[in-house]
Amino acid sequence: MTHRDPILMGPGPCNPYPEVMEAFARPVLGHLDPDFIGLMDEVGDRLRTVFRTTNRLTFAVSGTGSAGMEAAFVNFVGPGDVVVIGVNGVFGGRMCDVAERCGAEVVRVDAPWGTPIDPQSLLDAHPSPAVIAVVHAETSTGVRNDLEVLGTGKGDALLLADCVTSLGGIDLQIDAWGVDIAYSGTQKCLGVPPGLAPLTVSDRALDRIRQRPQSWYLDLNMIAGYVTGEGARAYHHTAPISMLYAIHAGLGVVLDEGPEAVRDRHQACGDALQAGLEARGFELFAQEGSRLPQLTSVWVPADRLPDGMTEAQVRTRLLFDYGIEIGGGLGELAGKGWRIGLMGHTARRRNVTLLLAALDDILV
Amino acid sequence: MTHRDPILMGPGPCNPYPEVMEAFARPVLGHLDPDFIGLMDEVGDRLRTVFRTTNRLTFAVSGTGSAGMEAAFVNFVGPGDVVVIGVNGVFGGRMCDVAERCGAEVVRVDAPWGTPIDPQSLLDAHPSPAVIAVVHAETSTGVRNDLEVLGTGKGDALLLADCVTSLGGIDLQIDAWGVDIAYSGTQKCLGVPPGLAPLTVSDRALDRIRQRPQSWYLDLNMIAGYVTGEGARAYHHTAPISMLYAIHAGLGVVLDEGPEAVRDRHQACGDALQAGLEARGFELFAQEGSRLPQLTSVWVPADRLPDGMTEAQVRTRLLFDYGIEIGGGLGELAGKGWRIGLMGHTARRRNVTLLLAALDDILV
Repeated sequence: MTHRDPILMGPGPCNPYPEVMEAFARPVLGHLDPDFIGLMDEVGDRLRTVFRTTNRLTFAVSGTGSAGMEAAFVNFVGPGDVVVIGVNGVFGGRMCDVAERCGAEVVRVDAPWGTPIDPQSLLDAHPSPAVIAVVHAETSTGVRNDLEVLGTGKGDALLLADCVTSLGGIDLQIDAWGVDIAYSGTQKCLGVPPGLAPLTVSDRALDRIRQRPQSWYLDLNMIAGYVTGEGARAYHHTAPISMLYAIHAGLGVVLDEGPEAVRDRHQACGDALQAGLEARGFELFAQEGSRLPQLTSVWVPADRLPDGMTEAQVRTRLLFDYGIEIGGGLGELAGKGWRIGLMGHTARRRNVTLLLAALDDILV
Repeated sequence: MTHRDPILMGPGPCNPYPEVMEAFARPVLGHLDPDFIGLMDEVGDRLRTVFRTTNRLTFAVSGTGSAGMEAAFVNFVGPGDVVVIGVNGVFGGRMCDVAERCGAEVVRVDAPWGTPIDPQSLLDAHPSPAVIAVVHAETSTGVRNDLEVLGTGKGDALLLADCVTSLGGIDLQIDAWGVDIAYSGTQKCLGVPPGLAPLTVSDRALDRIRQRPQSWYLDLNMIAGYVTGEGARAYHHTAPISMLYAIHAGLGVVLDEGPEAVRDRHQACGDALQAGLEARGFELFAQEGSRLPQLTSVWVPADRLPDGMTEAQVRTRLLFDYGIEIGGGLGELAGKGWRIGLMGHTARRRNVTLLLAALDDILV
């Protein structure tokens, strides 16, 4: 099979940074080799910087973003625990499914897809929840939900945030905002292929950790011994060595450029794309004021499609004639709109220019 | 940090094949890109060949070998189910822990570490177990346990086998031996870095799959839709793209050389190492007749260590002066012996020759 190298402007994965691809070439070390342990410690330090936290338990879970979600719930939620979950997209719904499998009593707070969740409605949903959970950046809609108000008002609850698409791309301050448990993915704004889930846990949350969660693989009691180095470096499972090289390099790129400059780059690209789409008469799906720069959702009305073509066929043409991948819509946007990502190494002005020009070619 | 490139002769990871390292350089594709779906299908086909099975649900779980173990249990074991588990090393013990977290009634059958488990003792342990589980190749001891007798005598039970260290290295016949559920890892005899867990499930097991297992991430009901392509290619979680390139390439090496030739190479290397150690007066830990060629456990008596050195210091000297990683012992072998792996690309005659020569240099 020959290699195609599409520009990945879907909802993730993004194109990885060149430095990340280079890192895959590093010779494999043993998972207890001192140099590998040192690299893993640096991954923790780098993650603390981008998460803006001092949480000692900050590391990359050995699975993709959804494994991070599962680790965040199974270690802190047990049978009968009340968990308030905001749902305005696919990933809020997934949180409910995961929490229910832990035996939680889920109090679900819905908001229309495309709009943010009113944080006060989450705070008012139950008098004493164990956990309040929300998706910071909904990949299915392109909407940003507020975390800061939740941190201020959470009371005794733990605040759990899905930061899969937000980490690295928009402002996120784990400690200042009072987020207790947060997870992310590598294939969004960190510019790394999928395969790991950055996770950070506050000491306040660790005080309430379940002693024997239903998952052995994601049991933070055991994993902490290996990744934090407190006590012995007890082997738990074999770390995915090459993927850790990759995230180490991706975080290195982010820190070299500067986390704020990286966020500004995501913002500028998103602004340019959204302005370009609106200038062409397209209507954005996400509510103004809550739009993510790194993930743009847009309506594609039938009268803009070439004769006899569906939106899916336009995406296929973009993929094979132009080498550009964009994503289909979900929910009410399915078949009627697109999700366009500008994340990690994909968040470059040249990609915005190219996509808009390609759409000018194809669309009516 | 400069790059060290040790020869990985521990219990895993092994050195990856050069073709695998090359595969990491492939441009990242989207997880729904037709070329990526095609590659994933080929991974399934290649795994079916090395597992010697026609099971349609055969794929690589998005986690390391222990995630494979968890997927194997959580999808088929629920509260009150009787699970007979053979324990003659660390990984049999881990199976008990995982099964207990599923709520299973575990019937544990122990055998001394270093000896195989009598399969009849597993068959006699309970009149009607839901599952009989055993580790095919115990990485902690270097012992092979019999699967074939269990498949013949399992009755109505499902036979679940840990094949992390056996797949690719020794004879394994999923269908002919009646194994219902088997998982492996990439970093052993497949010659790929750690990060994925090959899994295969018989139709007989699928008939008993739990409808909503405690793990969302490892829920085979949902994953099957994505990996088998039956029905729609419904997105479940974002596949770890680059790791799938890696296992695709590693399996390609195995199939090009021929699975039987690869097994012969592992056997020849293991035989040469074990003969070399015995010729030097060392006593092997695993019982004769049940020794794995790919993982050799050996006693290192104090009178063979240089003055004032521990076995751990000898391993450190091997690692930094000779660039060779070997593993420490576990259980009663801890501090008193070693585990030496010859797996994947590491299973080369030159590595046997080098290690024996290095030991001749260092040891008394």
